[in-house]
Amino acid sequence: MVESVFNHRSIRKYKSQKIDDKALDLILRAASRASTTGNMQVYSIVVTKDEAIKEKLWEAHFKQDMVKQAPVVLTFLADFNRFNKWCEQNDAIPGYDNFLSFYTASIDALLAAQNAAIQAEDLGLGICYLGTTTYMAQKIIETLNLPKGVVPVTTLVIGYPAELPGLTDRLPMEAIIHKETYQDFEASSIEKLYYDKDHSELTKKLLEENQKETLAQIFTDNRYTKKDNVTFSKLLLEVLKRQGFMNNEMEE
Amino acid sequence: MVESVFNHRSIRKYKSQKIDDKALDLILRAASRASTTGNMQVYSIVVTKDEAIKEKLWEAHFKQDMVKQAPVVLTFLADFNRFNKWCEQNDAIPGYDNFLSFYTASIDALLAAQNAAIQAEDLGLGICYLGTTTYMAQKIIETLNLPKGVVPVTTLVIGYPAELPGLTDRLPMEAIIHKETYQDFEASSIEKLYYDKDHSELTKKLLEENQKETLAQIFTDNRYTKKDNVTFSKLLLEVLKRQGFMNNEMEE
Repeated sequence: MVESVFNHRSIRKYKSQKIDDKALDLILRAASRASTTGNMQVYSIVVTKDEAIKEKLWEAHFKQDMVKQAPVVLTFLADFNRFNKWCEQNDAIPGYDNFLSFYTASIDALLAAQNAAIQAEDLGLGICYLGTTTYMAQKIIETLNLPKGVVPVTTLVIGYPAELPGLTDRLPMEAIIHKETYQDFEASSIEKLYYDKDHSELTKKLLEENQKETLAQIFTDNRYTKKDNVTFSKLLLEVLKRQGFMNNEMEE
Repeated sequence: MVESVFNHRSIRKYKSQKIDDKALDLILRAASRASTTGNMQVYSIVVTKDEAIKEKLWEAHFKQDMVKQAPVVLTFLADFNRFNKWCEQNDAIPGYDNFLSFYTASIDALLAAQNAAIQAEDLGLGICYLGTTTYMAQKIIETLNLPKGVVPVTTLVIGYPAELPGLTDRLPMEAIIHKETYQDFEASSIEKLYYDKDHSELTKKLLEENQKETLAQIFTDNRYTKKDNVTFSKLLLEVLKRQGFMNNEMEE
């Protein structure tokens, strides 16, 4: 049993203690051992420790304090820039300016990120993923000087935890596991699978605080609204175009 | 140090030995502990063991024999179907029919997949990711009866290894790690970073077999061609539309 997998919790408060180079090196090497499509390694990792650059990243990531608090910020990039350059220098014509290539490179970046997360936690460090990476991709591109062919996919903040939250609740396994093929849900089974979540003490507190009738409304009306999703979808698709992953040939 | 992270190799030949339920359960529970956006768990996993269904998946995955050989095939899905149903049953209007939501759900699915891979390898099992999942998404949707709001992201075959390949070579760490911000590459540094790869015994053999002048040409002309990438990009974008992740509002 991989202990750090089962002990994972997202850490949002960090001590000022630095991460030594040897530990950071091990985390990055762990990332590099993840599966990668055709062994192309079409991803990169930017390691940011500099306070001034972290300050800019903090602004991009909706000013979440953990970005400033954590000593190390790892930005995982879908990266065809290096591979394209290698091709061009070797009399090969790269054909990676398209959506599939972006998605392939994203997969590489995410598998590497999860290896880094697990290795960091195994060393007693805490981590948190920042979903704001895709919302604010353009600002991150500018902050980290990302060239064409490169798009930020996710971010990990890493440091020594200054809190120890409990394990996060999860839906019953039947909610996420399907046997042989996908078994779609009846209303009654949705109700049952979400029963504990819908009726927890935390939910009751949230409903009162947010003046909402159901937990689902807190998600749709407050946390992940249609308006935001449409706005960030447009922005992300524009970023893909600008970074060279939406060649017109796909529309022919 | 997380041993199974550093010992990972993709396994393409499997013994007929089954995986017992307890081991499989641990692997799936490991998947469920991965970080997930806002704890929405917008992913699912289809566990396929049935020979007839595996045969159809084998066809979808370019008839790679490991799909039939390995006793278990896990298909990881970006899944807003369950979440949308929960919202609708709880007087909440879901706004997740857009590209950002698809990408968010993909991230959830991939972090879960990597947890499953690491836990499986820790148990002495072998795994291999199937990149064909996105190329052949429509066929997989049909085979596994995936409803609207669900798209296959990646696949893991899992079983007891019938081979022990060496660790895969990787580029020097400087190729994938950037300090503070992205440091773009000079021609000379690309040449240096790819030197060992370009001049290995394996590469010499491949160049001869494929009658090519450079390793890069084997990637661009044979393995990952522009033609295929454009075709599969179109197909994947059509799948996203058909599965309900490309609402027109994004174009307004």
